[in-house]
Amino acid sequence: MSLSDSAGLVKKGSKILAALSSEVKDKALKAIIDSLKTHSAEIITENEKDLERSRKENLAPPLLKRLKFDQTKIDDVTAGIEALIRLEDPVGKVLSETELDKDLILSKTACPIGVIGMIFESRPDALVQISTLCLKSGNGVILKGGSEALLTNRILARIIEEAGVSAGLPEKWMLLAETRDDVREMLTLDKTIDLIIPRGSNEFVRYIMTNTTIPVMGHAEGICHAFIDRDADTDKAVRIAVDSKTQYTAVCNALETLLIHSEAAERVLPNLKKEFDARGTLLKGCERTRALITAEAADETDWKTEYLDNILSIKIVDSLEEAVEHIHTYGSGHTETIVTENRETAEAFLNTVDAADVFWNCSTRFSDGYRFGLGAEVGISTSKIHARGPVGMEGLLIYKWKLRGTGQIVADYASGKSSFTHKKIF
Amino acid sequence: MSLSDSAGLVKKGSKILAALSSEVKDKALKAIIDSLKTHSAEIITENEKDLERSRKENLAPPLLKRLKFDQTKIDDVTAGIEALIRLEDPVGKVLSETELDKDLILSKTACPIGVIGMIFESRPDALVQISTLCLKSGNGVILKGGSEALLTNRILARIIEEAGVSAGLPEKWMLLAETRDDVREMLTLDKTIDLIIPRGSNEFVRYIMTNTTIPVMGHAEGICHAFIDRDADTDKAVRIAVDSKTQYTAVCNALETLLIHSEAAERVLPNLKKEFDARGTLLKGCERTRALITAEAADETDWKTEYLDNILSIKIVDSLEEAVEHIHTYGSGHTETIVTENRETAEAFLNTVDAADVFWNCSTRFSDGYRFGLGAEVGISTSKIHARGPVGMEGLLIYKWKLRGTGQIVADYASGKSSFTHKKIF
Repeated sequence: MSLSDSAGLVKKGSKILAALSSEVKDKALKAIIDSLKTHSAEIITENEKDLERSRKENLAPPLLKRLKFDQTKIDDVTAGIEALIRLEDPVGKVLSETELDKDLILSKTACPIGVIGMIFESRPDALVQISTLCLKSGNGVILKGGSEALLTNRILARIIEEAGVSAGLPEKWMLLAETRDDVREMLTLDKTIDLIIPRGSNEFVRYIMTNTTIPVMGHAEGICHAFIDRDADTDKAVRIAVDSKTQYTAVCNALETLLIHSEAAERVLPNLKKEFDARGTLLKGCERTRALITAEAADETDWKTEYLDNILSIKIVDSLEEAVEHIHTYGSGHTETIVTENRETAEAFLNTVDAADVFWNCSTRFSDGYRFGLGAEVGISTSKIHARGPVGMEGLLIYKWKLRGTGQIVADYASGKSSFTHKKIF
Repeated sequence: MSLSDSAGLVKKGSKILAALSSEVKDKALKAIIDSLKTHSAEIITENEKDLERSRKENLAPPLLKRLKFDQTKIDDVTAGIEALIRLEDPVGKVLSETELDKDLILSKTACPIGVIGMIFESRPDALVQISTLCLKSGNGVILKGGSEALLTNRILARIIEEAGVSAGLPEKWMLLAETRDDVREMLTLDKTIDLIIPRGSNEFVRYIMTNTTIPVMGHAEGICHAFIDRDADTDKAVRIAVDSKTQYTAVCNALETLLIHSEAAERVLPNLKKEFDARGTLLKGCERTRALITAEAADETDWKTEYLDNILSIKIVDSLEEAVEHIHTYGSGHTETIVTENRETAEAFLNTVDAADVFWNCSTRFSDGYRFGLGAEVGISTSKIHARGPVGMEGLLIYKWKLRGTGQIVADYASGKSSFTHKKIF
């Protein structure tokens, strides 16, 4: 069967899944946990084959580490599913209700999007997380994982799909795509796939966006800034800058450029320098920065660079406005933080800066679904529509309008015989 | 200046617009009303030139009618702006709030999307409605209208832009694009335009989607169904079918196919036939339908057709499931209604049918932003993400995450020194 035909079956399955009760979905999630536990040994064996092949193919050590799926990982993902079961079922929640007229009630009701196409990198845990998130939110899912993880993904997909079906899910509610040709075909299935979520490099996300008319919830780079304002507390400024940059450097919510108000620079920079030196951070500064501390010279390329490394560029600015202007020119709309004791300045920053996450007096590293308490993370979106920043399960939901009447027709309202009350119920 | 450069200025302007107070925005809307009234005569003169040229170019009469922008239309659009001023400003509304830890509060806050690209057909009223909707919701806007309305659009855009700026809006907050080349260039501006809303034919919307990586809030055709269930009240069934089909045939929320339960067909069809005959509706039926009433033969092409005309296809089905299956196979996910006195059947229909609008015992023609009480309508979306069905101002909004702390860093949570409370405030 072609991918397109199989995907058509997932579409049909998704319509059934969308209307299933929470009980059935949670029962399916429990069955998946049980089956993952029962088949642990087989999963680990398949993963070892993937690891061995990938070692021979000289896959880089960090990627091998991500590929590894051992008992600890199995325990992690089953704990994740346990947590998912405890989350409230979002489907069917009434978001707002309006009386259009007597006995004519409009309800905006949360519902699944339909079929999610997820294209992800080497980590097999992503397959488990994504498929169970889709299940809980009532969406069908078509998954394409990295080829390094082929055998691991294959057995995980089989276990999850079968356990789900045994617990009452429709026959085809998920599908594993395996080849690059499959990905190309996925991108053409705009009647079947309602949303594509790619996880990978900027180039990869861009490739997906350019080659499909299906909506894409993309994740672009994170060029994040901290602005140390004139009224910043020195200790907080240093703590926040150091944490934002060094707590974990290889991630999109790590700090890349520090902006510092000229009236705070002399006071804060020497302390910062000391702390960053202690952590081996390479500092690159504008000319005014280099007049105050030792640093390599930064130029415009640095303002545009997501280092994803223990490197920090520093620029002195003369005002909040200049800081915001720099952020809008070079930032990627991911996470921006201000350090200041001045509430008015802080609120101006939070209101003016156009980014998914705007913070005051805390580290950029808080930008994360788990830390935000979203329960389960679909990804971090730098899109400007649908869902933005860390995305929880609501990113997999849309709504439908339910209108319950008692025989009303529009002609009566057009003629003036009836008229709308438009009374907001909630 | 190139379109791309001008659009860049709109982007800058949009960042200022996004942070403006409701007072300034409403003042700008008032200034626009005043200026439209003051310049009525000029506007009408320019519109008459457009009309004259279009008549010479043999523009079809319905299009000429849409192009006409006289004093009545000016009164309509200014009344629309008055209503917009009375609407609550959606920007800055806190949608939810969570305590991540003591003195670390996360607020999901509504904000404008940024720059909206709107491509619309001949009606110049659309220019006024869209630009003022964008203003109220804090978005910059780039508009491209039909070439028939060139002079009307030009004077309207100048009046609206200048009146806005005189009342305190940023220098470049809107931009009128005029040529097809402009449209092509718009589609490449993925760093500047955050959302494109095309209004026009299915082919046109499809063309836009295929030729841009910018998200598109599209409107596809409306192949809407009414299902007359076994337990339908005959009178309601007839009233609703007739209104859905004939109250206004040339619109996307008009009925195209009537599905009728085999156990209701004999009882309902003759009455339906009488009412439709009285209204000159051309009926096309499946074989079982034609065994009960006189009708032309319908085939699969009919199930796929948006007639937008006084034509109705009719099919007899044996169950709710068969009706839903037909709707999912041939429907466009726009508006679907069920007529039944059986609440359980109705709720099953509302839950199972995957469409933007699912109705019970009322006409499909209620599917409309004004009738839904949304205050102002951006359009009707058949997308599955961001906004669905009739879209009010919230379709022009997204949110940002504001996190207000007091010096918190992630290292303290990673080390276990601090821990998250994740207390939902609302």
